Amino acid sequence: MPASKSSVEVLEKIKKLVGQDDYLDSYEDRLCYSYDSTIEEAIPDAICFPGTPEEIAQILKWANEYRLPVIPRGSGTGLSGGSVPVRGGLVMVLSRLNRILEVNEEDFYAVLEPGVITQTLSDEIARRGLMYPPDPSSMKSSTMGGNVAENAGGLRGLKYGVTKDYIMGLEVVTPTGDIVQTGTRTVKTATGYNLTQLFVGSEGTLGVITKITVKLIPAPEHKESVLAIFADMGQAAQTVADIIKAGVVPATMEFLDHTTINAVEDYMPTGLPRQAGAILLIETDGVREAAVKEIGRVEEICRKNQAMKVQKAKDEAEREAIWTARRSALSALARVRPTTILEDATVPRSRVPDMVRGVREIAEKYSIPIGNFGHAGDGNLHPTILTDERDREEFARVEKAIEEIFDLALRLGGTISGEHGIGSTKARFMEREVGPSGVAAMKRIKDALDPNGILNPGKMFVEGGGHL
Amino acid sequence: MPASKSSVEVLEKIKKLVGQDDYLDSYEDRLCYSYDSTIEEAIPDAICFPGTPEEIAQILKWANEYRLPVIPRGSGTGLSGGSVPVRGGLVMVLSRLNRILEVNEEDFYAVLEPGVITQTLSDEIARRGLMYPPDPSSMKSSTMGGNVAENAGGLRGLKYGVTKDYIMGLEVVTPTGDIVQTGTRTVKTATGYNLTQLFVGSEGTLGVITKITVKLIPAPEHKESVLAIFADMGQAAQTVADIIKAGVVPATMEFLDHTTINAVEDYMPTGLPRQAGAILLIETDGVREAAVKEIGRVEEICRKNQAMKVQKAKDEAEREAIWTARRSALSALARVRPTTILEDATVPRSRVPDMVRGVREIAEKYSIPIGNFGHAGDGNLHPTILTDERDREEFARVEKAIEEIFDLALRLGGTISGEHGIGSTKARFMEREVGPSGVAAMKRIKDALDPNGILNPGKMFVEGGGHL
Repeated sequence: MPASKSSVEVLEKIKKLVGQDDYLDSYEDRLCYSYDSTIEEAIPDAICFPGTPEEIAQILKWANEYRLPVIPRGSGTGLSGGSVPVRGGLVMVLSRLNRILEVNEEDFYAVLEPGVITQTLSDEIARRGLMYPPDPSSMKSSTMGGNVAENAGGLRGLKYGVTKDYIMGLEVVTPTGDIVQTGTRTVKTATGYNLTQLFVGSEGTLGVITKITVKLIPAPEHKESVLAIFADMGQAAQTVADIIKAGVVPATMEFLDHTTINAVEDYMPTGLPRQAGAILLIETDGVREAAVKEIGRVEEICRKNQAMKVQKAKDEAEREAIWTARRSALSALARVRPTTILEDATVPRSRVPDMVRGVREIAEKYSIPIGNFGHAGDGNLHPTILTDERDREEFARVEKAIEEIFDLALRLGGTISGEHGIGSTKARFMEREVGPSGVAAMKRIKDALDPNGILNPGKMFVEGGGHL
Repeated sequence: MPASKSSVEVLEKIKKLVGQDDYLDSYEDRLCYSYDSTIEEAIPDAICFPGTPEEIAQILKWANEYRLPVIPRGSGTGLSGGSVPVRGGLVMVLSRLNRILEVNEEDFYAVLEPGVITQTLSDEIARRGLMYPPDPSSMKSSTMGGNVAENAGGLRGLKYGVTKDYIMGLEVVTPTGDIVQTGTRTVKTATGYNLTQLFVGSEGTLGVITKITVKLIPAPEHKESVLAIFADMGQAAQTVADIIKAGVVPATMEFLDHTTINAVEDYMPTGLPRQAGAILLIETDGVREAAVKEIGRVEEICRKNQAMKVQKAKDEAEREAIWTARRSALSALARVRPTTILEDATVPRSRVPDMVRGVREIAEKYSIPIGNFGHAGDGNLHPTILTDERDREEFARVEKAIEEIFDLALRLGGTISGEHGIGSTKARFMEREVGPSGVAAMKRIKDALDPNGILNPGKMFVEGGGHL
């Protein structure tokens, strides 16, 4: 979208406010901020790097006056198009707001700015014997602001929850330029509406996050890991069900399917048997005695379900080795074809076998290779479509396959997004999950807080339906 | 407020819809629904007991047309005036919607109607080896709908969280009569705005809850309890801090102050020493080995902090006996004077000693007896004001004392409500916590979803400021 006269005028004002060094508008720079980790692309009019909440408030006031779209973003690692400027406008990068302002070891919270890298926070917290549990796979580069905006998940969902479960309060600049403080630094609060959780996962459509108060917990004193290899997915799924039934809640319980195992072995051999139908990677943690007792139960249940191999890590090095296969899953799959589309359809845990089977059938029906891996404990799967977006005929089949995956997840009582968000890629499917009255209620809230629709337009709601 | 002609007309329609047996409007009946567990009182025009979400939707559509206030309620055990019809209108009792529709033992969730009593749910879940952790003191009579509407807390906040942490999804009838499904039955979801958490704690001002999906967890296999008696509150507070510092997160960690201990001994002697400054009641739970190891650490830390007595329960009977003092705290305090006002100001855990000391000073300043007990682990205190509301001079001092307690909690980084909500009793103080921009954002959401302000008017926002 070419910049209009009035948008030139407002961009000039913004450039003056943030300063030349924190404003970009060359074509090359605009290209750099035109994409995220999906295949969505759209070129913004300009990019700014504000330094304070007050600057952000001023920018949003002008944006409202001039109807300029503003797209807040962090590192752009999103998987649903959340930070892609699909209506053009101003990309607002929060990377300068990157300080950890306080870590309170007595009251178990930290206050930080949105540009802090998730891994940096996690390490800083771990050095003090505490833990910030959410661990999205992107954590080495994603920002906390992005994690909050998208309600990022990770491997520890079943036992520890996801980003939303650790956000105690926020400072948010609303689309009309008000600075709002939400939540508290206390474990409990029942004061007013839960604005904190309204902003968490709102994908940059309701406000720009400028401060985050996260809840911390004591780090578990001990961890135990097991790798279990199964001839078929059914046995692995039964194992997961039996573990939960035994009252054991592992910190993580990951699975890789046959396709993913073979992609990993092609890419970075870790000695997994190529004929395996599935592997499970299970970690227990907590008080030493509890973690040891629970991993013993896990091993027993794996064996009872005919695991081909059950390998417990003897030390930290072995634990690391066990997890390598899981960590390289996406990179390995991504090498197979030019385009990788990572979905996050999620179902109730007991429906994981139905979901895995259904995805396999969809892959066969459309002749599209789909790897599958993910978080077996919380039912959050990552069907990973391996394709070539330049092949229009194939891509049409891919779009149909993805649509069927979403419908399957919903039919099984699940959700079209467990942890990536709706953004532009899933906007046209959201109504299938939340219904017309759900969309209408959300839209009313959007319109109430952003009357001119300037903040991250074209996301979540159907008028923004873009590519998959 | 006398019923206007148009309100007579709409009430007639509603009476016809729900049927004579589920509609009340005699003066005696209206009196029965004029109060909750605060000292707030206001008489409604009528009471109805709808049987289905569809009936509720129809009633709300009419209420919108005729501008009739509608006040949804459960058992009326609320502690902030949430269910008191301060603007008159129709009280809508959800007690007929009292079925547990599903308990899913594989996927750890249950679906139920709002009229289910919290204890009934808890017992039903426990029989299956699972746990619904929130345990508000009112759980024997309060309903799940009320718990959700007020985001009820309880004793297990630190380790297990509160009601909001266990609500996965809701069915809600909006003030304009739409039936909305929110959330999922999966552990993770990132689809659209978190309407679920917007409705949780919204105190019946944004919608009528008609179905609730709660998250369940495996019941801990073992529990251990300790009673520790301290000469002064400082030692007890240091003990709490040291336990947390040691990485132990007890399931509950309750305290009773000197005033409360003596009220309990007057009411139902349990053998607590009357000179004690404070007692702590601590429970650890989880895998047997972990609970045992942790209670050992707890005992050690209590002794290190000069506890006068540290008594570990040897069996279930002793465990029950230990908890009797805590359970009878409020009843014991309530016997001291004609009027009992139970507050729930909450501070970060490390500020509990400052808060306890400050409340004691406020009690002295205004010559008002204030007992203090509550949840030391999560900083959620229950300063309990013992007074006589008929004594206007004294009650004026009480109102000042309460205002100072709120301001003290805020000064210490806390919240004016940890678990009771704002309702009508704290409406005029909410802005002190969330600021004018926070109130404005909440009000915009209220107006967006309830354009005619028919649902539970006079609550949360300042125009509804009533008694304390």
